[in-house]
Amino acid sequence: MNSFTIDLKKTSGSPLYEQLYRYISGEIRSGNLKKNEKLPSKKALASHLNISQNTVETAYFMLMQEGYIYSKPRSGYYVCDISDLVPLPKVTVPAVSARPEEKYRYDFRTNAVDISSFPFKTWAKLNREVVYQSPELLFAGDVRGDRCLRESLTKYLREFRGVRCSPDQIVIGAGIEYLLTLVCGLVGPGISVAVENPGYGRAVSVITNSGREVKYIPLDSDGMRPDLLRESGAGLAYITPSHQFPTGIIMPIRRRAELLSWAAESDGRYIIEDDYNSEFNFAGKPVPAVQGIEGGGRVIYMSTFSRTLAPSIRIAYMVLPEELMKRFFEKFGRYSSTVSRFEQHTLCRFIDGGHLSRHLNRVKHIYRRRRDRLASTLLSLPCSPKLRISGESAGLHLIVEGPESLIKKALDNAMRENIRVFRLSDYYFEGKGREALILGYASMPEEDFKPAVELLFSSCN
Amino acid sequence: MNSFTIDLKKTSGSPLYEQLYRYISGEIRSGNLKKNEKLPSKKALASHLNISQNTVETAYFMLMQEGYIYSKPRSGYYVCDISDLVPLPKVTVPAVSARPEEKYRYDFRTNAVDISSFPFKTWAKLNREVVYQSPELLFAGDVRGDRCLRESLTKYLREFRGVRCSPDQIVIGAGIEYLLTLVCGLVGPGISVAVENPGYGRAVSVITNSGREVKYIPLDSDGMRPDLLRESGAGLAYITPSHQFPTGIIMPIRRRAELLSWAAESDGRYIIEDDYNSEFNFAGKPVPAVQGIEGGGRVIYMSTFSRTLAPSIRIAYMVLPEELMKRFFEKFGRYSSTVSRFEQHTLCRFIDGGHLSRHLNRVKHIYRRRRDRLASTLLSLPCSPKLRISGESAGLHLIVEGPESLIKKALDNAMRENIRVFRLSDYYFEGKGREALILGYASMPEEDFKPAVELLFSSCN
Repeated sequence: MNSFTIDLKKTSGSPLYEQLYRYISGEIRSGNLKKNEKLPSKKALASHLNISQNTVETAYFMLMQEGYIYSKPRSGYYVCDISDLVPLPKVTVPAVSARPEEKYRYDFRTNAVDISSFPFKTWAKLNREVVYQSPELLFAGDVRGDRCLRESLTKYLREFRGVRCSPDQIVIGAGIEYLLTLVCGLVGPGISVAVENPGYGRAVSVITNSGREVKYIPLDSDGMRPDLLRESGAGLAYITPSHQFPTGIIMPIRRRAELLSWAAESDGRYIIEDDYNSEFNFAGKPVPAVQGIEGGGRVIYMSTFSRTLAPSIRIAYMVLPEELMKRFFEKFGRYSSTVSRFEQHTLCRFIDGGHLSRHLNRVKHIYRRRRDRLASTLLSLPCSPKLRISGESAGLHLIVEGPESLIKKALDNAMRENIRVFRLSDYYFEGKGREALILGYASMPEEDFKPAVELLFSSCN
Repeated sequence: MNSFTIDLKKTSGSPLYEQLYRYISGEIRSGNLKKNEKLPSKKALASHLNISQNTVETAYFMLMQEGYIYSKPRSGYYVCDISDLVPLPKVTVPAVSARPEEKYRYDFRTNAVDISSFPFKTWAKLNREVVYQSPELLFAGDVRGDRCLRESLTKYLREFRGVRCSPDQIVIGAGIEYLLTLVCGLVGPGISVAVENPGYGRAVSVITNSGREVKYIPLDSDGMRPDLLRESGAGLAYITPSHQFPTGIIMPIRRRAELLSWAAESDGRYIIEDDYNSEFNFAGKPVPAVQGIEGGGRVIYMSTFSRTLAPSIRIAYMVLPEELMKRFFEKFGRYSSTVSRFEQHTLCRFIDGGHLSRHLNRVKHIYRRRRDRLASTLLSLPCSPKLRISGESAGLHLIVEGPESLIKKALDNAMRENIRVFRLSDYYFEGKGREALILGYASMPEEDFKPAVELLFSSCN
């Protein structure tokens, strides 16, 4: 073959060399250009197509790089033998069905925050400062997260949660799920993980996906039962002592000590304290963390900014006991941190500048008012004496229990009226659980409480 | 006990109720207040301490919540029995040694970018717009990442990498390590993973940490050897065909087809195509992705913005075949995305506004000049005829080979002169590998090339 006839489009979006490359590689793949066939010289082709020799050179170079053609010194370019290659399958772009965003008339979701109170201006300003002032943050940082944020968190944790740690023990990561995955990688194989029943389904997903067996431990009125934990043979216990999810139980000091005692009984046992929502305690100061009672040898403390800032800001952190910190470096020392350094430093300035505590005070006030408003709306129902509200001293949702028929009707009403509520029974992993409504109030406008509650309990009298 | 003598500090940082709470809980823990001992009434204590009754109420409420005290109706408050609790260990804050940031005289690091060309202004501006204009981004988003970014990536991948996919198949995550961890969770137990030898150590860490066995497959001049891959019994093959890490081999079409043929031979086999650095091809258009040749049934395509933007911006993504996408929803459907939605949307606007391609053109130009400058510096050495430079047509580092004694001396010089270089032999997981210097040039100022190279090869003549 001495030349090609190609319709090169100078005004097309793709450069000429690329059009040429595509044409020739297509001809080779389709068999129109046979193996060992000689291609036109660069000079001849350039002149034939009225394009620069550089363009041809680039296309030929790409074809060589990819193994479509080869060159013989002082002779020219030839087609490679690709005839015996597997026939390449036809391309089909699959349509994986995405779950559509559902819209509710009223939404008692539990995983949301009050959008309007987010300090957009401060956040954007701090972020801009960080981007402008700290170009060196473009380089990879410490696998645990940057020291600046770990120091801010150490102070914050000491002051607000009674957690005692050094910045060296903190690992920052993009969400509790990610951190829990790391933790599952830090303990020996075959160690199973105890989880509260009812409890947090995502934690169960993570633990199971990490290849570990989950043991479901029933609760009594103080939280996870230590006797059943001990019987289970688990080596890790994942608990939510500040505000048990979803029941809202605040674990008393005695139970905390009993669980610590379980951990101390045998080498390699740890409590994973997920301190979610602890900032939203509406009766005085939040209960201090288990980690602080014990000193940190047996407790892996975890928390997140999902609720204190927003679910979409993916910054969580954990405090590892010294022994596990060493293992962390061995196993994960080569990883990169999962949180953008720009966002880490924005958050660091946000905490150090006092914006976080101001923000927390502001939203705590809002959430307390919402909780009160929702509770009083429920208590003003004609059937309110039959209802029992719990979980109200902390967290961002209420539990509403009552006679089976009444709760069942409320769930039916929710379905019919397109109101999102959650049911306590859905949070049981095994056994028949109590039934109750879980009503999250963080993101619902207050004026919606009355109509939503009245629809739910329309048959309540 | 009828009352306490506490030195409450009205001007202290911590509120009075908290000081009171701390004092009483301390007295109970230390045994100064015994079980069943009665506490002063709220009214009496308030009057005694000259504080409001509300303050006492709050402190008592906290003590009750935590199980330090209990109330008897119409009688008062009493100390709980915590005498049999395990003695709580002393707190020591461990000092986990952090690895100090090392400072080099000259740094040929391979994982860096040119800081000065980062579009700080545009990035900060877009970020600010996103934060201001999209408050709804505070809510949790799609586990795969937001549709807006997945759509931008689909177009970008089609245009620049020949990847054919739908936005539904894309999963965005905080780094290749995280995505690779997910992939390891998508295939059946017992499936081992083939990795290029020499190759990318972090990938090996992730695969091993996911509990999978790694099979090291030697390379020939075209990349991973298909015969040895087949013998290995692996079910997944992790490859870097655009620019093999670290050797810089660009895998020819024939080898790509051979590996695809291996994948097609048996159900459940997949190629993981890590397309890192593919944007920095200095000879025409980058070689299209393996995924695009094949259509995506057997290829898991992965890439990252670590090099195209910066290592600290933690946004990577993968394209999953339909079958694995289904499994992804089953296993990880409840997870949250690991990338902040603010950053996702900033990047989305960055791509859609044409900023990414402009930025890439700009840095490609800079990096090509640096590569040329570094290469010509090496070629102007007296001993340059003894040196062989490779890996130069793509990526952001060069491989320099030569006589053993010369390379050894260069490594000694690097050590003595505090110059960071990497050695090819360190990237072999087994077997004795070739020795060579790996010189990353992305972040080193050009004027440093000459003095650094002259120090390295001071004994070269």
